[in-house]
Formats: sequence, C-alpha cells, structure tokens
Amino acid sequence: MTRIAIYPGSFDPVTRGHEDIIRRSTRLADRVIVAVAENIGKAPLFTIDERLAFLRTATADIPDVTVQAFDGLLADLARSVSASVVVRGLRAVSDFEYEFQMALMNRQLHADLETVFLVPGLELTFLSSSLVKEVARFGGDVTPFVHPEVRAALQAKFSA
Amino acid sequence: MTRIAIYPGSFDPVTRGHEDIIRRSTRLADRVIVAVAENIGKAPLFTIDERLAFLRTATADIPDVTVQAFDGLLADLARSVSASVVVRGLRAVSDFEYEFQMALMNRQLHADLETVFLVPGLELTFLSSSLVKEVARFGGDVTPFVHPEVRAALQAKFSA
Amino acid sequence: MTRIAIYPGSFDPVTRGHEDIIRRSTRLADRVIVAVAENIGKAPLFTIDERLAFLRTATADIPDVTVQAFDGLLADLARSVSASVVVRGLRAVSDFEYEFQMALMNRQLHADLETVFLVPGLELTFLSSSLVKEVARFGGDVTPFVHPEVRAALQAKFSA
Amino acid sequence: MTRIAIYPGSFDPVTRGHEDIIRRSTRLADRVIVAVAENIGKAPLFTIDERLAFLRTATADIPDVTVQAFDGLLADLARSVSASVVVRGLRAVSDFEYEFQMALMNRQLHADLETVFLVPGLELTFLSSSLVKEVARFGGDVTPFVHPEVRAALQAKFSA
Amino acid sequence: MTRIAIYPGSFDPVTRGHEDIIRRSTRLADRVIVAVAENIGKAPLFTIDERLAFLRTATADIPDVTVQAFDGLLADLARSVSASVVVRGLRAVSDFEYEFQMALMNRQLHADLETVFLVPGLELTFLSSSLVKEVARFGGDVTPFVHPEVRAALQAKFSA
Amino acid sequence: MTRIAIYPGSFDPVTRGHEDIIRRSTRLADRVIVAVAENIGKAPLFTIDERLAFLRTATADIPDVTVQAFDGLLADLARSVSASVVVRGLRAVSDFEYEFQMALMNRQLHADLETVFLVPGLELTFLSSSLVKEVARFGGDVTPFVHPEVRAALQAKFSA
Repeated sequence: MTRIAIYPGSFDPVTRGHEDIIRRSTRLADRVIVAVAENIGKAPLFTIDERLAFLRTATADIPDVTVQAFDGLLADLARSVSASVVVRGLRAVSDFEYEFQMALMNRQLHADLETVFLVPGLELTFLSSSLVKEVARFGGDVTPFVHPEVRAALQAKFSA
Repeated sequence: MTRIAIYPGSFDPVTRGHEDIIRRSTRLADRVIVAVAENIGKAPLFTIDERLAFLRTATADIPDVTVQAFDGLLADLARSVSASVVVRGLRAVSDFEYEFQMALMNRQLHADLETVFLVPGLELTFLSSSLVKEVARFGGDVTPFVHPEVRAALQAKFSA
Repeated sequence: MTRIAIYPGSFDPVTRGHEDIIRRSTRLADRVIVAVAENIGKAPLFTIDERLAFLRTATADIPDVTVQAFDGLLADLARSVSASVVVRGLRAVSDFEYEFQMALMNRQLHADLETVFLVPGLELTFLSSSLVKEVARFGGDVTPFVHPEVRAALQAKFSA
Repeated sequence: MTRIAIYPGSFDPVTRGHEDIIRRSTRLADRVIVAVAENIGKAPLFTIDERLAFLRTATADIPDVTVQAFDGLLADLARSVSASVVVRGLRAVSDFEYEFQMALMNRQLHADLETVFLVPGLELTFLSSSLVKEVARFGGDVTPFVHPEVRAALQAKFSA
Repeated sequence: MTRIAIYPGSFDPVTRGHEDIIRRSTRLADRVIVAVAENIGKAPLFTIDERLAFLRTATADIPDVTVQAFDGLLADLARSVSASVVVRGLRAVSDFEYEFQMALMNRQLHADLETVFLVPGLELTFLSSSLVKEVARFGGDVTPFVHPEVRAALQAKFSA
Repeated sequence: MTRIAIYPGSFDPVTRGHEDIIRRSTRLADRVIVAVAENIGKAPLFTIDERLAFLRTATADIPDVTVQAFDGLLADLARSVSASVVVRGLRAVSDFEYEFQMALMNRQLHADLETVFLVPGLELTFLSSSLVKEVARFGGDVTPFVHPEVRAALQAKFSA
C-alpha cells in the first residue's frame, strides 16, 4: 500500500524549518503532498502562486514531494488524494496545544486520518515565517533561514 | 523498503491508551516493535515477563506487532532491528517537554532515527499506568482502562 | 443565601462545549447568568441578538439559567446582579494562563467575586467557536458540535 | 439542597495557601470537608494525627469546615459524605495538567462529582508544603507561610 | 567596562509592571535604555511621543535610565548603543515561549547580545498594557496599575 | 560596585550546558560563584568533592569564576558573599515554572537578590545531567555533552 502524507500550512514564505520537516516526512511516507492554504485569514505577504513557486524551488531536490494549493477542509483534501497521514512540526508548547486541538478535530471529521508530529532540526526550532518576515522588513540578514530565492523575494518586497 | 517502528515504554501495565497508540502506529509502519524497558528506575509492579505477557495478550489481534524486552539505549535497539521510526503518544504539555528532550537526544545518538508523536483517542487522554494502579490499589473499577487479563492481575496483586 | 454564578463569553456561536459548562455550573449555584459580551474586539459572525437567541434555545431545558447581554466590566455586572461566582471552562494550558490573569484582575476589581474553573466533558475538549466556524465555512459537518438551530444558521451564513 | 465540597490533599503541613483555598471554598458550598490523605506515597514529615491537628487549628475560625482523614478513592469518599464538588487550588501550568487528568479520572469513577479549580491569593502562589519544609530545614523564616503552631512544629522537627 | 542594558517594548502605555522591571534592570547594568518600538503592528492607543513622555515621567526617579524610540531590529539598536544585555520580564508560560524564540533569533543576529529574563513583583504578574486598556475603556479604576499621569490620559481617551 | 552573581545547582555532573551558562553569566557580573549543593535530595552519582573538581576543571579557562560547595539557603549564601544576582538557565516550560516559584520564594527571603534567567546555547537545550548519566549508563557516547574528564569518570563509574 502506498502511504501518502500531507504537510499543510500557509508557507508565507517557506523557511528552512519547513524544508526540514518535509525532508523528514519522506521517511514516513512514500509520497508527501505539501498543501498550501490559499486563504489564511490575514492577508499573506506572498500570493498563493509565489508561495507555491518558492516551495517547488526549495523542495526540488527532495524526491517524492508534490506541492499544491488547497482551499477547504484538510479532511476533504486527505480523502481526495487518499492520504492517511497529516504531518506537522512541533516547536513549542503553544504549537502543541493548537496542533492537538486541530488533530482531534480532524480525527472527528476523518477517523482514519492520523496526525503525526515531528521535531524539526534543533537549529530551526526558533524559526517561523512571521519572525523571518519581521527580520527581513528591518533589513536583517535572513540567509540562514530561507532559500536564496525566497531571500531575494523578501528583499525585493521590503526595499520597495 | 520495509518501515519498522519502535514503540518503547515500561508498560507497567499496558493500558487501553497504549493499545490505541500501537494500533495507530501500524498505519505508519509495516512492522511495529513494542519495546519493553526491563529496568525502569523505580521498582515495577509487574515483572518484565508479566509486562511482556500482558502486551502480547492485549495486542494479539493487531497484525504486524512484535513485543520484546530491551535493556540499553533506544538508539542501539533501533540500529539492531533496523527501525527508522520511534513512536510516542502525547497526552499533555508535560509529556511534550520530556518527549521533546528525549527525541533530540535520540537524534544526537542516531541521526536517521525519526521520532513521531501520535495523539491517543480522546477518551484515553487521561489514562496512565500509574493512575490505573492507584485506582486499582483502592479497589476502584479499572475495567474501562485495561485488558481483562490485566485487570485480573491488578486485582490479584492488590487483594493480596 | 442564593448563590448566583455568571458565565461570561462571546458565544459566537454557542457550542456543545459551552452548553456542557452551563449545565455543570448549575451544580454550583442556584442561578446561572450566561453573560454575552456585546463588544468582542473583532467583528463577530453573529449579532448580539442572534447569539442571545441561540443561547436561549440551547439552554431552554436547563433550569435556573438566564441569558443576558452585557457591555462593560465583568466586576460591575457581578455587583449589579449580586453574583458571587464567575465560571469559566478550562480546556488547555493556553486557556489557563489567560484565565488566570483575568481571574486575578477581576479579584483586584471585586475582591469578593470568586472565579471557578470547570473541566468540560472530554469529548468537547477540542471544541471552540472559532474552530466550529472554520469547519462550517468549508462545508464540514458541525452536527456533533452545535445545536441544530446553530448549525442551520452557520450553513445559511456560509452558503450565502 | 445542602452543597458539600471536599478539599483533598496531603497537607504535610498545611500552609497559608491551603487556608486561603479553604476559605474561598466556603463561598461555593454550605460545608467544606478537608480530606487528609493518610497514605501519600513518600514518607510524610508529619503523622496523619499531626496533620489533622494543624489543619483543625488553622481552620478553627472558618465556619462550616470539617477536617477528616481518608484512605482510598476520592470518588468513594465523595459518595459516602454526599459531596457534589471537589475543590482544588491551581497555581501553575504543571499543577493544571495533573489536576486536569485527576478531574477526568474522578469523573469517570463518579459522574456526578464536579471538580472546581480556584486561584489562591496571589501572594500565596509560590507556596507549597515541600518548599516550606525546605526553607524550614535550613533555618529560614517561615512565619509568612504557615500558622504559628505549624512553624513551631517545623522548628522543633528540624532543630532536633 | 560600562554595562548597558536595553529594555524593549511597545509600552502602550507603560504600567507599574514595566516600571518594576526597569527598576530591577538597574541592578544588572550601569545604564538601562528603555527602547520604545514606534511601529507595533496594530494601531497603538497612544502615539510614540505620548508613550515616550509617559515613560519619562514614570521613570523620572530611577537613576541611569534613558528612554528612546526605535524602529528596526533590536540587534542593530544594541550595536549602535553598545548594549550587551537585553532585559525582558517574564510573567507566564506563554510569555516564555515567545520570548525564548526572540532571544534565540536575536542571538543569531548578534551573537554577543545576551537576553536576560526577570520576574516582576508578584502583585504585578497579572498586569499587561492591553488588560489595563480594557479596564480603563469600561471605566474601571486603574489607579493601582499605572502612573497617575497615565491614568489621567486613559480617562481622557475613553471619556471622549 | 562589584557585581557578584551566584549560579547554584547540583552539577552531578557538570555538562556543557552548565559551562555555557557560566560563560554567559560572566557578561552580567564581575564575579560568578558556582555554588554546588552538597545535599541534593536523592543520592548523587558523584561526591561533592568530585562535583567540585569537575567544575573547576571545566571552568578553568573562564575568568572571574569561583566554585564552592554550599549547604543551606541560597538567600543566606547570597548575603554572606554579597551577591546581588542569582543566575539560572531556562530550557523548557517545566523548568520555567519551578524556577519562577523558587525566584519568588528567594525574593521573599532576600528582597534585594535578583534572579535572572539565561537561555543556553541552542545545541545544549536538550542536555541535562540526568539524561547524560542515563546515556553513559548504557554505554552511549557522551563526548559532545561533557568535559573529557567528566566523560572518563562516567565511563569508570558505569564500567565498574
């Protein structure tokens, strides 16, 4: 049986921490679908097309990874792509509680969908898309945190 | 490639919560090895042989599960059985922190061993072996929490 | 002496989790006033009149419960209705910290007002109004989470 | 209907923090039973008779409070004294998680027994019996933390 | 060597809790620079000039304290004023996680800048600028929480 | 004025994480006293003399650091050595809560003693003396976690 995992998120933009979780996910599944939420509540910095493009660039060298947009319930997406696993990275207690609640809600909506939590590489623990954007906004160096293409896009965005 | 997962613990005794995690683990791996720590710091209520026997009974109907004792480093066990995944259940924030620390230490000792966290069934969230033992010690009904054979053993232990 | 409890919130909309806490509150007090905050920072999905109506429907079968709007300090409301107890449900650590801070502030503003925390039914632990709205927005089934009348209103809202 | 609350603990020894919670409990119930666990895992510093005596002294001026020993399941005690409420003080997140687990287990064993959590006076937040014992052991002044009679007993214990 | 500490924040408005941390900071450094973020995401209640003025009034009697606005990366400010220490108050677990993440990011951006966390006076633990604004908005008495000049400004703002 | 800081602990044995905190402490104070608790509840693996010796070796190259044993209240030690600051490393939420409680108790016992919390180097976050001992006990490689002399002593201890 082919094991398919979904790694959902807003990826605004993808960071080295996300890349790390994607790489780790491929150990658990035969195929990993990175599912990018189109609609993320607040206005994203990058459009859905930009976010997809960055992810495709950043994961180009990781086999068995597909990147796609989604808009709707994760449980419905999982059914439509026959995924049995949802992957989430856990960095902190506050992550944990929200993720726990989401995992239980998703189980309610799709009983056979298992959420698994992975621990990112330690040096990526403190990274988040919003922190990276904040650093970039003020001209800080984000080289260690994102793919060079994302860094260039952040610089272009904030030097405008 | 065959994916092998280890689910380590002291299982003193196995509860319905452990059984639930074992069942969920089989969705992630082709084979799940339940690894029972012989030496668990404080004196266990049940011997290693009793703990193994309870687990074998409780998981008899779950395919692809093996139960074995272990004494040593989890990282060494993983190498010797070619496991690529460690499974742990997460119930609470306090679990999370200890588990996080262990996952990072195990990654240090065995870089290719991935720890994944699963969320137990909600109705099992508040279960723990020690709480079950405390209830049994005072004559409370542990029927919903453990396999009938374990319940009988607990009653025998505490009515002595 | 008649014990009066207040259960404050935004209830946008009331969930089965809120209903559960209201029911439990009636064990602690002779009368429970469900106090619906008119002004809740961000724009509510439902008007104050809708939120009041849903609550009245959902609690129609629970004796000794009154539903009312309020706008102002909880401490002032407590004084005006002679309430001695504030009831809050606790689901998670993150709830706990905010609630703790509010309880201490309310004690500062009204020394004789005691805040008590209750644990909701386990199967309701992962529910929140915002999660229910998110599920409904994407067409997910919210039948287990809210009163049928609320479900109908959510469907009407999001199919528009 | 008379509302009876139980406040269980080991009280080894009672601190000003416990006294505060007992006082607050009397606002919620017509009678508060302070239930002192005889058997508390590790060896207590004070015997069950000493712990009962300290509590009776410390609560002498609080009406409607009874102090008694208990050995067994809290759920059974609640049934035998017709208590409908269990009271617990919450100081910290780590308290919260353990207490949450106990509340859910007690609900499983006695569906009509409601656990309520209270917030102690702020200046008592950092108090615990074990911290008080540690301070007393090294000759620190525990006057602000315990009743004078308890302080005298601690001094006698540790100067021996 | 002169030790210079920065205490950054939005201070919208300064509370007695902030004043307490500033006072404690002066024990750790020869000079404390209170750095007021001009741009704080959401619209502040008070302008940067008002926030600076309130801080200067509130800290007038604390020696070796300077108040200044800043807009940019904290790491850059630290370099420009030769500060070696960043001071932050810790009140709760949720504070802790965010602060931990920021401290690690700041260390990445400026390896020699050490973040230190202080515990505010217990009676100030539950204070926050946003809670104070909420109380003031509804006419509650904020006398114990802020400097008289800040209280007057809050009253003027909300009675308008 | 000379600023003196105390870094208290049991150091059974000192890890690279402790060394890191000691090094960081020297940025905050003119002299850092590492205070080794003689009496640490449970039986230590290493004697007080061994623990002192390991610390002296591990901190030999850090200027302005003194190592000494202590037995009693930290507040009393601080008074006797004229220390104004206590330093503690924070790794996790569970650390935080215990440390917070201790900081408040120490402030009660010695109002002018300020506790400051530092964040260890990220790669040391998951280290603890007890985890290092567990790894060493089972023959794991502790080279990255402790000074070579400590590693040799651990090996000698556990190969016996």
